[in-house]
Amino acid sequence: MPANFPALEKLHPIDGVQIATTYAQIRTTPKDDFTLFALAEGSTCAATFTQNAFCAAPVTLSKQHLTQGTPRYWLVNAGNANAGTGAQGMQDAQTCCQTVAKQFSCAPEAVLPFSTGVIGQTLPVVQMLNAIPTLANNLAADRWLAAAQAIMTTDTKPKGVSIQFDLNGQTVTLTGIAKGAGMIKPNMATLLTYIATDAAIAQPLLQQALQQAVKHSFNRISVDGDTSTNDSCVIAATGRSGVIIVADSPAYNTFYCELEKLCVQLAQMIIRDAEGATKFITIQIEQGANEAECTTVAYTIAHSPLVKTAFFASDANWGRLLAAIGRAEVPNLIIDAVEIYLDDVCLVRQGGIDPHYTEARGAKVMAQTDITVRVVLGRGNAQTTLWTCDLSHDYVSINADYRT
Amino acid sequence: MPANFPALEKLHPIDGVQIATTYAQIRTTPKDDFTLFALAEGSTCAATFTQNAFCAAPVTLSKQHLTQGTPRYWLVNAGNANAGTGAQGMQDAQTCCQTVAKQFSCAPEAVLPFSTGVIGQTLPVVQMLNAIPTLANNLAADRWLAAAQAIMTTDTKPKGVSIQFDLNGQTVTLTGIAKGAGMIKPNMATLLTYIATDAAIAQPLLQQALQQAVKHSFNRISVDGDTSTNDSCVIAATGRSGVIIVADSPAYNTFYCELEKLCVQLAQMIIRDAEGATKFITIQIEQGANEAECTTVAYTIAHSPLVKTAFFASDANWGRLLAAIGRAEVPNLIIDAVEIYLDDVCLVRQGGIDPHYTEARGAKVMAQTDITVRVVLGRGNAQTTLWTCDLSHDYVSINADYRT
Repeated sequence: MPANFPALEKLHPIDGVQIATTYAQIRTTPKDDFTLFALAEGSTCAATFTQNAFCAAPVTLSKQHLTQGTPRYWLVNAGNANAGTGAQGMQDAQTCCQTVAKQFSCAPEAVLPFSTGVIGQTLPVVQMLNAIPTLANNLAADRWLAAAQAIMTTDTKPKGVSIQFDLNGQTVTLTGIAKGAGMIKPNMATLLTYIATDAAIAQPLLQQALQQAVKHSFNRISVDGDTSTNDSCVIAATGRSGVIIVADSPAYNTFYCELEKLCVQLAQMIIRDAEGATKFITIQIEQGANEAECTTVAYTIAHSPLVKTAFFASDANWGRLLAAIGRAEVPNLIIDAVEIYLDDVCLVRQGGIDPHYTEARGAKVMAQTDITVRVVLGRGNAQTTLWTCDLSHDYVSINADYRT
Repeated sequence: MPANFPALEKLHPIDGVQIATTYAQIRTTPKDDFTLFALAEGSTCAATFTQNAFCAAPVTLSKQHLTQGTPRYWLVNAGNANAGTGAQGMQDAQTCCQTVAKQFSCAPEAVLPFSTGVIGQTLPVVQMLNAIPTLANNLAADRWLAAAQAIMTTDTKPKGVSIQFDLNGQTVTLTGIAKGAGMIKPNMATLLTYIATDAAIAQPLLQQALQQAVKHSFNRISVDGDTSTNDSCVIAATGRSGVIIVADSPAYNTFYCELEKLCVQLAQMIIRDAEGATKFITIQIEQGANEAECTTVAYTIAHSPLVKTAFFASDANWGRLLAAIGRAEVPNLIIDAVEIYLDDVCLVRQGGIDPHYTEARGAKVMAQTDITVRVVLGRGNAQTTLWTCDLSHDYVSINADYRT
């Protein structure tokens, strides 16, 4: 059961982006599993991808295509990751791109392929090629929700955010969808995120905005520390609103803030719908000597099975938080300077339990679904925030049963 | 249910070491929880401790005492870690040492205190002080098994190994016990290990032998990646066998090999009895550029919740192994050179599935309790081996219920 998953608001269409979904028999359950995005001519496109060395064939090919031309089509399948598939996997991804290119009379390099699902199985290419004309003949602007559903794997909820804001008296729209529930510790991007805007932004500036927003959103979430082979985040700017955004302008700052807000909301949705999650946990590290050590402490807490099972049990077992911080290998950590809080309840100061702490105060915070762990390191001004979830029986069940 | 836990063999007494155990009401269940080791005068002693910055009060005090004199007594309680207890915890540990010292008319610095159990609770000092005379009056040589039982917390099996070997025609005995089942990723030592020998070895040489043996045994196991606040490993050499071991001698080499063997056996027992473990997994990384990158890859696999749940399900889900290796941040990893094996079944080569692999062959290995994951990195001559277990429903249950 997702942890306080928000009600999905209307996903506004983006002028210049059309979408189609269909069921191509890639997954066994008959739900749409194949999605095509078509971008209007003149759109710019930026992307970030997984840093996993065993990255999937579509990731490798998308990266290549981005250097060779301007993308016009994003082709996404769920149910098969096309990762760990060697030379065959690369050929299959190329064949899919070629077929889309033939359908629309464009270069294969204008097509970016994406896959998500089980690692190590060959793509059912024949079924996919047969489904491409269906996709091509059913493109429509108002299909963002359908796409959010068609890219799901172990997700229980479709994830989407849509924002409208004014720039110089004109309305700009920003819409994005994402998927991902397990194998989530994105490194440079997350498992399949698609964003589009009707603003006009040159490619290098769009890439810069995307990278920075991803750093503060998708790269700050973790379900299980397992960075996927397929993480991809891609954005298109169609320019159809007539609003032009240039570097170092107030308009860019507004656009960037809205983009980061959208990415943070999508990233948090992934955590709220994480495999087996019953708690949404914000980990906030403050007063570190530098951002790197804050991040190390935050991930050490976020990945500790003992901390995660204590949250599942709603047990304010602060000894496990203390042990996790202590093993994070922060050089010369002065433990007497460290403070640990659950929301605004102080658990630990001066190396031991806070004298005002009571089990009842800790239990009250732990009973909530949304909890903030705040750690004050007392050694500088750096800080970081990340979002994670608990480790429940359902996580074990979901991942013990995934292929069977 | 422990994973192929071996039958315990007889634990030989060590001439010069006497042991007593009693129930001091530190834990709620009425099982012995308080142990005293007394070492004969002239014994040497070496130790390694956790690197966790939030190390427990008894760890801090034992480290101090080791620099101040020669230990004669080891005092161990189970049921309370005396960690995260601030200034009070340090005072409680000192009080215990002073009471033992008064009982035996020795300096408090001759007493090393050790604690294991729940973090963050004050020691029940009154009950402990009352029990010290009982311990002092019941010392006997043949109590190693009783001690192995008295130091257990979530362990389901007592852990002990005893080895006898010849040196220059004389018999040397080496006996050790250990405990630990969760919060196990020792860094320099493991949660409470006590070893003794009747050989005579000078302290610096004994320390050197212990550190090296610990590096290849306790520091190569992980249950959950959570390094404890209380890990301690201590060894005494009483010299009562009359065998003297000096540096750079064949006798030292023999002694070291036997010590490492004993430590490896104890470390493996900890994994076989790890919280919720149903599988004993050996992770062997070969052909790395250096040992550090082998260790990084090995721990990335060992700590991956997705890999661990796949083992629990006996599912040869090699995609998760591949994803874990890929995210281990090995610089410039050539994925076509990587090979992944389960026992002698090759799963992956050249970036994809091995053409001879079948699900049936993988399933056969996965059905075993003992499984070796072997990863060939194809970039050098370094290697490492470590031991871990799966992640089961019982691990979640045990750690969600631990304090309740």
